[in-house]
Amino acid sequence: MSSKLNTASQPQPLEDVQGDDRWMSQHKRFVFLTKEREPEVVFIGDSLIQQLARIELWKKMFEPLHCVNFGIGGDQTQHVLWRILNGEMDNVEPKVVVLLVGTNNYGNTAKEVADGILAIVDAIQLKQPKAHIIVMGIPPRGENPNKLRDKIEEINNNLAIQLNDVKSCTFLATDPAVFINSEGTISPTDMHDFLHFTNEGYRKLCEPLLELLQDLLQNFVKVANTSQDSDSLAGDLATKAP
Amino acid sequence: MSSKLNTASQPQPLEDVQGDDRWMSQHKRFVFLTKEREPEVVFIGDSLIQQLARIELWKKMFEPLHCVNFGIGGDQTQHVLWRILNGEMDNVEPKVVVLLVGTNNYGNTAKEVADGILAIVDAIQLKQPKAHIIVMGIPPRGENPNKLRDKIEEINNNLAIQLNDVKSCTFLATDPAVFINSEGTISPTDMHDFLHFTNEGYRKLCEPLLELLQDLLQNFVKVANTSQDSDSLAGDLATKAP
Repeated sequence: MSSKLNTASQPQPLEDVQGDDRWMSQHKRFVFLTKEREPEVVFIGDSLIQQLARIELWKKMFEPLHCVNFGIGGDQTQHVLWRILNGEMDNVEPKVVVLLVGTNNYGNTAKEVADGILAIVDAIQLKQPKAHIIVMGIPPRGENPNKLRDKIEEINNNLAIQLNDVKSCTFLATDPAVFINSEGTISPTDMHDFLHFTNEGYRKLCEPLLELLQDLLQNFVKVANTSQDSDSLAGDLATKAP
Repeated sequence: MSSKLNTASQPQPLEDVQGDDRWMSQHKRFVFLTKEREPEVVFIGDSLIQQLARIELWKKMFEPLHCVNFGIGGDQTQHVLWRILNGEMDNVEPKVVVLLVGTNNYGNTAKEVADGILAIVDAIQLKQPKAHIIVMGIPPRGENPNKLRDKIEEINNNLAIQLNDVKSCTFLATDPAVFINSEGTISPTDMHDFLHFTNEGYRKLCEPLLELLQDLLQNFVKVANTSQDSDSLAGDLATKAP
């Protein structure tokens, strides 16, 4: 399939089918925040990013690192791509960008979703050539084994290979066994609706992320001073895909 | 239009378009919980109910009153109606049921949504004839004035009139001015994405609800003992629609 036909990698604002223009209001608010704050880290993505900002863990783990959260519930890759190309990365100079998106692209194939995420990585590098990008693997979902979990695994495998060659970019996958038990089920104590995380689920997801972030931020100045290849540094620090 | 054509009042499980069967998993979990717990109060509805259970306020305000939360994100009236008719009200004997739903029925007219909510009230009374029902007004949404806010106002006005005649049922509306300022805008400090509430937004929404709930629970035994008409009691207690 020609990449021109892949909706997941074509920047697109969300169609306002409900008629309250909320999506555009959120985008404009994020653009406004880029002018108000000087974040070291920008989180961007869908509801899995958005809801992280609603819990105590965000305040404890991430706010002290000067993070902003540009998550919008329901976003697919093409919507995040549009937001990045239309102002959300224009007035900031983050050291790290954390990306988690793709679970909502149910109309696209695994390859299309992975290509959509790669297109977002390209867009971030265009806007923020000095930033390090952390692409988080898409977490499994659904109480029991299902075809969407299989597709997510395929997307993650695809990303692990393709992002391996991308400079200043780390693919941070979570071992599915962190959330899927030996019977193949996901517990509501980790994902209350079998997609969105509880506090405990977020703790499991975010502890490796926090460690990586802290290392990247601490080493950012060193890397800049010594002109060390930040890609090789990230390679040492990153948790590898399972 | 014949009521047979109103999708909002025809019980319907959510179509599993994403392929992970999460909606049915959540429904089955709620049915399981009805056998595990003996709630005094059942909250049921969409994400505005669901996300309430994710914050500290739920633990402080509502858990001590023995509440369970059967909220599912994205639910429309027909989905909540189906859940009630298929097990979520079968093994419990709540004194009060709190209902908030309708904001997601964007494909239905105001009258259809109101009729869908009235159909849910009928279904709850069928399953739980002794319970008092609190129907919460649909909160306004969107940063700026918009057609969806107008429709919501029409739904709420419709409900205020039609529920006035229903025994053991209280319509608890929130004055839109609680969330809409003099310029007509909603602040992200109340609704972070201009639909879902922050802690502060939930506090404003839930303080009148908590007061009503406490009064209803305290008076429940008295009412039962004296055979006093619980409808007139609720009439005294309810915050009236603006």
